Amino acid sequence: MAETLRDHGDPGDAPSVPAPLVEPTNPVRPSAAEEARTIAASTNTATLASLTADGDPWASYVTFGLLGGDPVLCVSHMAEHGRNLATDPRASLAVVAPTSDTDPLAGSRITLAGRVEKPTGDDYDAARTAHLAAVPAARYYVDYSDFTLWVLRVERVRWVGGYGRMDSATGPDYAAAQPDPVAPASGPAVDHLNADHADSLASMARAFGGFPDATAASCTGADRYGLDLKVTTPRGVAYTRVGYTTPIDGIDDLRAATVDLARRARETAETA
Amino acid sequence: MAETLRDHGDPGDAPSVPAPLVEPTNPVRPSAAEEARTIAASTNTATLASLTADGDPWASYVTFGLLGGDPVLCVSHMAEHGRNLATDPRASLAVVAPTSDTDPLAGSRITLAGRVEKPTGDDYDAARTAHLAAVPAARYYVDYSDFTLWVLRVERVRWVGGYGRMDSATGPDYAAAQPDPVAPASGPAVDHLNADHADSLASMARAFGGFPDATAASCTGADRYGLDLKVTTPRGVAYTRVGYTTPIDGIDDLRAATVDLARRARETAETA
Repeated sequence: MAETLRDHGDPGDAPSVPAPLVEPTNPVRPSAAEEARTIAASTNTATLASLTADGDPWASYVTFGLLGGDPVLCVSHMAEHGRNLATDPRASLAVVAPTSDTDPLAGSRITLAGRVEKPTGDDYDAARTAHLAAVPAARYYVDYSDFTLWVLRVERVRWVGGYGRMDSATGPDYAAAQPDPVAPASGPAVDHLNADHADSLASMARAFGGFPDATAASCTGADRYGLDLKVTTPRGVAYTRVGYTTPIDGIDDLRAATVDLARRARETAETA
Repeated sequence: MAETLRDHGDPGDAPSVPAPLVEPTNPVRPSAAEEARTIAASTNTATLASLTADGDPWASYVTFGLLGGDPVLCVSHMAEHGRNLATDPRASLAVVAPTSDTDPLAGSRITLAGRVEKPTGDDYDAARTAHLAAVPAARYYVDYSDFTLWVLRVERVRWVGGYGRMDSATGPDYAAAQPDPVAPASGPAVDHLNADHADSLASMARAFGGFPDATAASCTGADRYGLDLKVTTPRGVAYTRVGYTTPIDGIDDLRAATVDLARRARETAETA
C-alpha cells in the first residue's frame, strides 16, 4: 500500500501549504535510494533493532561503517544486541542525518532492514577496514575476542525526508545508488546563495518552481540535481524544487549550475 | 548473567587504565535507574524498535515525551512503525544523551523495553500533554485521525554510561527513580571547576579518589551525589569519583558542595 501523501484527516487547524500555480519545470530530485545512500554516509552512529531470545524488539545504539551501502557493525557478545544478532540475523538500522533544525521531524532519516552476516576472508578485511575508517576508536576493541564484525545485508529501505517526503527502495536499488556528491559539502554555497542572491532564488521560484506569485525564496538544500527552495507567496509559504540543466558531479560544479539557473530565470522573466 | 566488567580477552595493544592505589572514600554514583531517568529526560528524540507483521525488528526514528518515566509516542498508522505497534505491542526505545564527545561510544545511552498501551480517559489527556510539552510541533498533527498516542510501559531498562560503565534496572526501580536535578545544568559549573580550580580537583583525586599519585585532575561531570574526575598519574590516565558529604537537591547547592570537598581534601593533605 502506497504511504506517500495520503490524506491525514484534517483536524481543522493545521497550517495549509499553497499549491504551485503551474507545473514546476524540472523538479527532478534524488531517488529514495540515493537519499538513503547519502544519509547512510552522513554519520557513523545509528540505532540497531535486533530480536531478543523471546523475539522481542531490542533497540540499541551502535556505531557503523559502510561496505558499499551495507552497514558494518562491531559489537560485543557480552552486550545484549551482540547475543541477539548471533541468535537471529534479522536486523534493521535507523540512521538519522545530522540536522540543525529545531523540529526533529523536519529532518531526514532512514531504516535499512535485512539480515546480518559474519564476513569471512577478504570480506572480513574489507569490513574491518570500513568500520575502522568510520569509527577510529574501534581500533581499541575491534580485535578483542568478544567483538564480532557484522555486515547488514540490506534487503529493503525506508526513507523519510521530513514532513510529507517519504518513499521506499529495494535492496538492489539501494546497492546500485551512489551517495550525493554535492549535498554534504553544500552548506557554505547555500549560505552564500541566501546571503547574496536572494533575488535570483525568487526568480528561479517564479520561472521554474511553479510559483509565479513568489515574492521571496530561500535555498534549503543543494544536491547533484538541483536546489530545494522555500518560497514566500501572498498565499503562504511553500516548498519547491528547481533542477539544473544537467546533473552535476561535485561541489566544484555547483556555482556554474546555479549561475546558469539564475541566468535562465532572468531571461524567462524578461520574455514573459 | 552479569555483564559488567567481564574480561574482553586482551588483543595485546589496547591502552591500559591504572587502578586506584587505595579505596576511593565515597565513590557513590547515581543508580542505573537514576541514570536512565536522567537520560530519558535529556532529549525528545529516540529510536523505536517494533515488530513487523513477519516478526522482524524495525528501527525507526521517533519523538517522545515522558509520563513519569514512560515514553509517550505519537505515530501515524500510515507509517510502518504505527502499524507495527497496533499489531504487536512489544517495543523498545533507544535514547542517546546529547554529547559533545568525538567518540560516540564514550557517551550515555539507554534502552527502555516493554509494551505500548493506548492511554484512555484522563491518561489520554496526560499523555497528550506530556507529548506536546516535549514536542511542540506535534500540535500540528497530534489530533489527526491517523495519529495514535502510545505510552511505552517500561518493563526493563539497560543503561550504558560509556566504556565499561553499564547496568540493568527493573521497570519498578526505573519508575521510582528521579532524573538528576544537577547534571543537566552542571556544564558551566564543571567548566568553571576545570578553568579555575584544577588544583582542588587534583587534591580531591589524591585525598578521596583513590589516586594519591594524581598529578592533575579534571572534572568530567557533576550530579546530585558527586563529581566524576579524569585523573592523570605517572601510571597513565584513570577515571574516578568523589562524593559530596551529602547528596544535593539542585544546581544551586553545587558550589557549596564542591567548596566543601576542596576544603576537606586540603585538610587531608595537610594532616597526611
